[in-house]
Amino acid sequence: MENFIFQNPTKLIFGKGMIAQLAKEIPAGKRVMVTFGGGSVKKNGVYDQVKKALAGFEVTEFWGIESNPKVETLREAIRLGKEKNIDFLLAVGGGSVIDGTKLISAGLLYEGDAWELVRKGMCTETVPLAAVLTIPATGSEMNNGAVISRKETAEKFAFYSNNPVFSILDPTVTFSLPKWQVACGIADTFVHVMEQYMTAPGQSRLMDRWAEGILLSLIEIAPEIVEKQDNYERMADFMLCATMGLNHFIGMGVREDWATHLIGHELTALHGLTHGATLTIVMPGLWRTLKEKKMAKLVQYGERVWGITAGTDGQRADEAIARTEAFFRSLGLPTRLADAQIGDDTIREIERRFNERNAAFGEDRDVTGTVARRILENCK
Amino acid sequence: MENFIFQNPTKLIFGKGMIAQLAKEIPAGKRVMVTFGGGSVKKNGVYDQVKKALAGFEVTEFWGIESNPKVETLREAIRLGKEKNIDFLLAVGGGSVIDGTKLISAGLLYEGDAWELVRKGMCTETVPLAAVLTIPATGSEMNNGAVISRKETAEKFAFYSNNPVFSILDPTVTFSLPKWQVACGIADTFVHVMEQYMTAPGQSRLMDRWAEGILLSLIEIAPEIVEKQDNYERMADFMLCATMGLNHFIGMGVREDWATHLIGHELTALHGLTHGATLTIVMPGLWRTLKEKKMAKLVQYGERVWGITAGTDGQRADEAIARTEAFFRSLGLPTRLADAQIGDDTIREIERRFNERNAAFGEDRDVTGTVARRILENCK
Repeated sequence: MENFIFQNPTKLIFGKGMIAQLAKEIPAGKRVMVTFGGGSVKKNGVYDQVKKALAGFEVTEFWGIESNPKVETLREAIRLGKEKNIDFLLAVGGGSVIDGTKLISAGLLYEGDAWELVRKGMCTETVPLAAVLTIPATGSEMNNGAVISRKETAEKFAFYSNNPVFSILDPTVTFSLPKWQVACGIADTFVHVMEQYMTAPGQSRLMDRWAEGILLSLIEIAPEIVEKQDNYERMADFMLCATMGLNHFIGMGVREDWATHLIGHELTALHGLTHGATLTIVMPGLWRTLKEKKMAKLVQYGERVWGITAGTDGQRADEAIARTEAFFRSLGLPTRLADAQIGDDTIREIERRFNERNAAFGEDRDVTGTVARRILENCK
Repeated sequence: MENFIFQNPTKLIFGKGMIAQLAKEIPAGKRVMVTFGGGSVKKNGVYDQVKKALAGFEVTEFWGIESNPKVETLREAIRLGKEKNIDFLLAVGGGSVIDGTKLISAGLLYEGDAWELVRKGMCTETVPLAAVLTIPATGSEMNNGAVISRKETAEKFAFYSNNPVFSILDPTVTFSLPKWQVACGIADTFVHVMEQYMTAPGQSRLMDRWAEGILLSLIEIAPEIVEKQDNYERMADFMLCATMGLNHFIGMGVREDWATHLIGHELTALHGLTHGATLTIVMPGLWRTLKEKKMAKLVQYGERVWGITAGTDGQRADEAIARTEAFFRSLGLPTRLADAQIGDDTIREIERRFNERNAAFGEDRDVTGTVARRILENCK
C-alpha cells in the first residue's frame, strides 16, 4: 500500500424529500447564485422544490450550463456573480453543472480570465459551493474535480478546486431521466471505479473489495434499471454507487490509471461525443493494448466480478474484457470508434496532441502519444 | 435504503514515516496536551517521533489513560489541561486513549463534572483533537464516539463529541503489539462491521458489499498476522480495515444493531473483561437467539463470506454462526461465558440493569432485559 492522505469533508444528504433541507444548510444572509443546465429541472419538480426551500434567501439564477461545460458560458456566470456580489453557489444539475460551478466558485475570487485557472489546473480560493444532484454519474457532488471545455480551441482539461460543502441526493429525481443518460451514468461510474482498480493486484485488499463491490452492484442494477427506472431502492443503490465511485473512498493507498479518461476527453473535445460513451469505447481497447501488464488484475476482476475461473490467464483476461464490452453494449452504448463514426484522422490528431504535451499517462506513466495511438487502433 | 446524512471530516494521514507530518498539521502557537496510555510508546519509538515532530510547540504530557478509560483518570487530565490553558489535544495511543481524550476535549470547555457530560451522551463544544493511532481496533481515530467507564459504580457508557481533525496511522507501530491485543483488534473490527451489517438484507447492495469486503479481508489477514506480525502490507491492510469498520463508511442508509456491544459493555463494567473478548462471547449467542429474525442476512453472510451454499436456510445460518465462532477461537479469543468464568449472577445483574434503564436495543429495539438474559444464556 502506498502512503496516502485522505479527506472528504462533503456532507452527503441522501434520500427522498431531502431537498427541503437546503434552507438549514446554507448560512443565513448569503447571497446565493443557483446554477442550472437546461430546463429539465422545471419538468421534474426539482426547480420548484429548490425555489421553495430558498424562499428566505436573496437568489440569483444562472441558466444554461451545457454538458461538457464551456468556459465561454462560465465566464458569463462569473461576470453575473461578481456583479451581484454572490457569496454562495448552489449547483442544481448533473456533473456538468456541478463541474462548471466549481470553476465559477474560483472565478468569482479571481481577477484574470477563467481559462487561466483551468490551465493552472488548481485553485482552492473559492466561494463556498453546494449541490443538488439530478444525474448520478460523475461523482462531482463529493469530490474536488471538474472537467472544463473550451469551444474555440476544442480543448478539454481537468481542473481541481474544493469539494461541495454539502450535496443533496434525492433518488426520486432520477426517475424521469432519459434512458441514454442513465446508461452513460452507469458506464461512467463503472469506468471511474476501473481507473482506480485496474492496475496491479495486491496494493490494498480492502480497496480491491470495495471497488469490486461497486462493480458487482452496478452489474446487478443495470438490467433492472433498463427494465424499470422508477424503483426507489434501485435508483438509490445506483445513486450511492455513482457518488462512491469517485470520492476517493476506493482510492486509498492505490495507484490510479486515468488514461481512458484522458483519451476520452479528446474524443469529446474533437467530436462532442458524450463522456460516458468515450469511456466505453476506449477502456476495452486500452485493456487489449496493455493486457500483459494488467493481466493479474484482469484475471482477479474476471474471477471476482464475472465468475470466470476456467482457462489460461490470457484466456480469462480476454473473457473479462469481452464480458465488459458486452455489458456496455447491453446498456446501448458504443464500444468501438466506428460506432461513433470516428476514424484515423482523429487517432492521428490525438497522438499529435499527446506528443505536443509530452503526455505520459496511466499508473506507470507509460501511455504516451504513440501508446494512445495503439490503444485507439485497438478500439476500431 | 433509509434516508441518511453522512459527513466525516477527519483527515486520514496514512503510511510509513507519517508521524513526522504532525508539525505541519497542528496550527502554530497552539498549547498542546499530548495524552498517553502506559509506557509502550516509549519502547516502540512512537514517543520519540512525536516529541521530535512537536519540537516547536509548548507541550504538556498527560500519562496513564487506561484501557476502558475511567472518568476518575480523565478528571485529572481536564484539571491539568485547564491549568495549562490547553487549546489542542493530541491523543497518542489506541482506542482507549483517543476515547478518553474525546471526553477531555469536551471537559476542558465545561464547568461541571465530566461524568455529567457522559450521562448527557453528547457534547460538541470541544477543544480540537487529533490522534496518532498505535492499536488498530476501535475506529475512534475517525469517528465521534467514545466509551467511558466509571470505576466507583462499575458503569460504562457511550459518549459522542467531535471527530479528530486529523489522525496519523503508521502501520509499522503495530509490529510490536502484544498478540492478544492484535487478536482483540481483529475481533473488534469484525464485530463493528457486523453491528452495521447483520440486520436485514436488501437495504443497500453497496453497503452490504463493502461490509463483506472488510470481513473477507479480515478473514484472509488474520491467520497471516498470527504467523508473522511485522509484514508491512498485511498490517497496513488490517489498520485500514479497522478504521473503515467504524467511520460510518459502511453504515449509509442501513439500520444498525449494536446490542452485542451494549451487552458486552456490561461484561467489561462488571468483570473488567477486554472489550474485544466480550464481543466474541456475546455475538454468536445473540445470533443463536435471534436466528429467525436475522436468517436471511445470516444466509447471505454465510454464502458471500464463507462460501456456504448447501443445506436449508437454518442449516446454512447455523454453519455461518459456527464458522464465525471458530474464527474467533482461531484468534485465541473466548466465545463462551464459561471461558471468562462468568456465571448466572452476572446474567441476572445485566437483566436487572437493562430493565432498570428500560433498555430496548438492536435494529428493531426489541432487545430488552429479558431478551438480553436469553442471549447471555445462549452464550454459556
